[in-house]
Amino acid sequence: MDNISENVVWHDHSVSRDNRIEAKGHRPCVLWFTGLSGSGKSTVANAVDHLLHKQGAHTYVLDGDNIRHGLNGDLGFTDKDRVENIRRIGEVSKLFVDAGLIVSTAFISPFKADRELVRKLLGEGEFFEVFVDTPIEVCEQRDPKGLYKKARAGEIRNFTGVDSAYELPESPDIHIKTTEHDIEGCAQLVLDALRKAGVIGA
Amino acid sequence: MDNISENVVWHDHSVSRDNRIEAKGHRPCVLWFTGLSGSGKSTVANAVDHLLHKQGAHTYVLDGDNIRHGLNGDLGFTDKDRVENIRRIGEVSKLFVDAGLIVSTAFISPFKADRELVRKLLGEGEFFEVFVDTPIEVCEQRDPKGLYKKARAGEIRNFTGVDSAYELPESPDIHIKTTEHDIEGCAQLVLDALRKAGVIGA
Repeated sequence: MDNISENVVWHDHSVSRDNRIEAKGHRPCVLWFTGLSGSGKSTVANAVDHLLHKQGAHTYVLDGDNIRHGLNGDLGFTDKDRVENIRRIGEVSKLFVDAGLIVSTAFISPFKADRELVRKLLGEGEFFEVFVDTPIEVCEQRDPKGLYKKARAGEIRNFTGVDSAYELPESPDIHIKTTEHDIEGCAQLVLDALRKAGVIGA
Repeated sequence: MDNISENVVWHDHSVSRDNRIEAKGHRPCVLWFTGLSGSGKSTVANAVDHLLHKQGAHTYVLDGDNIRHGLNGDLGFTDKDRVENIRRIGEVSKLFVDAGLIVSTAFISPFKADRELVRKLLGEGEFFEVFVDTPIEVCEQRDPKGLYKKARAGEIRNFTGVDSAYELPESPDIHIKTTEHDIEGCAQLVLDALRKAGVIGA
């Protein structure tokens, strides 16, 4: 076997990013949902994912359930670990985009610098910051996991919105107010934005 | 907005793993290529990926190029970092399988314990250890990146096959001898095994 020439031949025959995108029928991108705990990130992300899937898009959702117990199971909640948490999610998102998928991520991601770091990993038009804008009073009233209660009681430290900052997105690509639209309405706003950006067809 | 009931409703409407698999037309799995540096892992993995893509499968290849400079860019080559390197690749592979794809990985992965750790992350029939079996003399003669030369000169330490062990797969799911088949032949052996296992159609 002539290894060198075979290598060259097969490199030409590797599946390119464009080949993968062509097979999917839509452009790949990251929908980076950011917002307070209880804002509805995960709910809206899954609703968007459902609508995209229904129209034949190839999608995936990264969230606490499949990241914190797996890839990032070695990380805690120190500042350093929180930065590393977001960095890894960004890098994994980039791999999914390279594979041709529309990947939605649902993490609080409170710091602007971390979100910008992820944006810089992706190409032009591949990263959409989706701000799930819900007033903290509403989030705290919902408190689906009882976390605000624990944070107020001092049982959880560095809790975003209580004793740790949430840095507001200044110019999010998509801005959703969950107090003005129901979940399906919020999801449709994201779909509209993706159509406008040419990620999916009209 | 009645958050609790909406959450319940939308959870029912989330895209399930089965939904994603159905949309792909094949079963998802990891093809874990293991073998010495220069054995042909990456070449055969890309050839397999090409054949799978041609028949409409949704695929991706994880290799040094897209992992070492991104997700695992913070890791070096100590024993601890090498274990973490393989663990993260395993966890990312698991996410790709959950997304419904056939993901090929091309890393030396010399230690049996690491490979078994990844196997345990995946479900029954989702992990195929593909041993790319090439005698070290042949790998060293090919030496496409000049790494054996550097290792023999002592410029690289802990180089697999030179001053670090390669633990042979005892019962690989797929065993390929690159000195007995050309690259296309090797790739076809993998495809045959995937057909037999019901990952792809006949």
